Amino acid sequence: MDDIRTVYWKDGKVSMIDQTRLPGSLEYVEYGDHDGVAGAIRTLVVRGAPAIGVAAAFGMALAAKNSAADAARGVLSDMDVARRTLAATRPTAINLVWALDRVYAAAGRESSAQKVRAAALDEALAMAEEDVATNRSMGRNGAALFGDGGTIMTHCNAGALATVGYGTALGVIRAVRESGRPVRVVATETRPVQQGSRLTAFELKHDGFDVSLIPDTAVGYSMAGGMIDGVVVGADRILRTGHVFNKIGTYQVATMAQRHSVPFYVAAPLSTFDMTSDPGDVTIEMRNAAELVGPEGRRTAPEGIGVINPAFDMTPPDLISAIITEAGVARPPYERSIAELFTANF
Amino acid sequence: MDDIRTVYWKDGKVSMIDQTRLPGSLEYVEYGDHDGVAGAIRTLVVRGAPAIGVAAAFGMALAAKNSAADAARGVLSDMDVARRTLAATRPTAINLVWALDRVYAAAGRESSAQKVRAAALDEALAMAEEDVATNRSMGRNGAALFGDGGTIMTHCNAGALATVGYGTALGVIRAVRESGRPVRVVATETRPVQQGSRLTAFELKHDGFDVSLIPDTAVGYSMAGGMIDGVVVGADRILRTGHVFNKIGTYQVATMAQRHSVPFYVAAPLSTFDMTSDPGDVTIEMRNAAELVGPEGRRTAPEGIGVINPAFDMTPPDLISAIITEAGVARPPYERSIAELFTANF
Repeated sequence: MDDIRTVYWKDGKVSMIDQTRLPGSLEYVEYGDHDGVAGAIRTLVVRGAPAIGVAAAFGMALAAKNSAADAARGVLSDMDVARRTLAATRPTAINLVWALDRVYAAAGRESSAQKVRAAALDEALAMAEEDVATNRSMGRNGAALFGDGGTIMTHCNAGALATVGYGTALGVIRAVRESGRPVRVVATETRPVQQGSRLTAFELKHDGFDVSLIPDTAVGYSMAGGMIDGVVVGADRILRTGHVFNKIGTYQVATMAQRHSVPFYVAAPLSTFDMTSDPGDVTIEMRNAAELVGPEGRRTAPEGIGVINPAFDMTPPDLISAIITEAGVARPPYERSIAELFTANF
Repeated sequence: MDDIRTVYWKDGKVSMIDQTRLPGSLEYVEYGDHDGVAGAIRTLVVRGAPAIGVAAAFGMALAAKNSAADAARGVLSDMDVARRTLAATRPTAINLVWALDRVYAAAGRESSAQKVRAAALDEALAMAEEDVATNRSMGRNGAALFGDGGTIMTHCNAGALATVGYGTALGVIRAVRESGRPVRVVATETRPVQQGSRLTAFELKHDGFDVSLIPDTAVGYSMAGGMIDGVVVGADRILRTGHVFNKIGTYQVATMAQRHSVPFYVAAPLSTFDMTSDPGDVTIEMRNAAELVGPEGRRTAPEGIGVINPAFDMTPPDLISAIITEAGVARPPYERSIAELFTANF
């Protein structure tokens, strides 16, 4: 996907791959205002914590651009409205809040409407560039953990499609290949939205990887059969204690990995860390039943039943072998190693 | 489903619910020869170890009925051909072999072609009747384990639709309700064939149960949230050591249950036990990629990737709290308790 950017700025609009159309067709959609971007985040046109962050940053730039105010304060006030709208789209990924706050803070340092608008866009553009550089650093740090290459399992999509480019977990896998070591990938389907089959398998196949798809039910089977040498996944929020919030199902992949002594790694940028919340503070987004029971006319479940459809779960630190960031690799005990990463980088 | 039989004999044919059409429509299909029955087993028109066993038994009765031979030996020879065809349909469930051998043995005791035909049909009819009685005994034995009722998770479909009627795992759940205790059910979707959403949710909703569907990825989330009081599943083959072969994904449900100290029960008739094989002897059926990547025109995965689609996995005895049969409940250590069940009953 070196040729492809998931989210980018073009002619005064934000352009993104419509991920709801994959793997059937690769199409771009453009949004000219922050409400459009908010809708794109809500409906999973764009998804993946880092990609959501950059999309939201461009949403803030659009809000600034579209503001009719002629003083800095007025533009910032319009941006604050946009910030609230964008922040409310999805509650679990912390990168979203981080990105919104960063653009707003950069803009807030300026004194004229024009400078506020320019600063908002510059900051969003910088974040998009940084994202790829961050992922490449993360990839190098993570690749060192896979000394012999091998078969790596991943869950959901933490790839180029979840970021501006290169990917977090899939960035690690790319870096293993770039280092010349043999690598094969086993991708879980990741029900209900099927980011594993629709996005990860698509992205890896596009880039010539040897990738095999399994149903989420076959994680234990694959590990029991000795097929898996390591697991790497992304994250939507990581607490200072090492608790990882990520796509629903991550927790049981990690549990099976521990049972089979398979190393389980999380790859995420420092912007994914939430250094203040405790596990009970984090809202796990519940999504609609239709994702699970199928569309009208192709229902795979009867009418009138209950549906429990959480988008994320929490993996406790005792199941995590290491957390890979652009600033280095944190190992247990995480309370200390995560704090050290932040001390060294800020 | 008291009003419904999944597999039954009618006017010289075997009639079954076409389970590939559920939950959209409840339709019956009829087969007049054993090749038709074999096709129905292969394509999952009928599935579930006990239902497959009875369907195959009726297939043997059809082979006897359709045999042009006029001596007992000739009819038995034709039945032996049918036995091989039917045995080759699916390799993992042991009830299939048990049922075929039982009908063949009953027929083999007769001395005329006419008596062979009658004995084959009588044996198959008896097995269909026994199936429901067996499940009711199993239900009573299992219900005693759920003293306070509560919320029970199940995986795949081990219900009326997996048997002639009443069900094994769902028979236990029915018996809990019949004993007057409150019971709610959490059904896993069970990818890739979705027996949980298509069949279990349908069957339980049909019978007025409070049933909620979860994606297979949310097993850990549900248990971590304290939502689940116990798990009960069926089995396709149980070894004398207590190793349980059941629908893909069972192993990780059992692992998560152990992590959360949730009791994990298996409910299956004695005909599901294989007292001679070791774990490595059992063939796990691999099914086609289309089940996972979707039908032509609605592909959910790109072309050209690998697919690993095992139909079953093995749950080791250390994860199983008890095995519920019609003859009683086996507890660890299973080598002894299973042997005792067989000694007491044969």
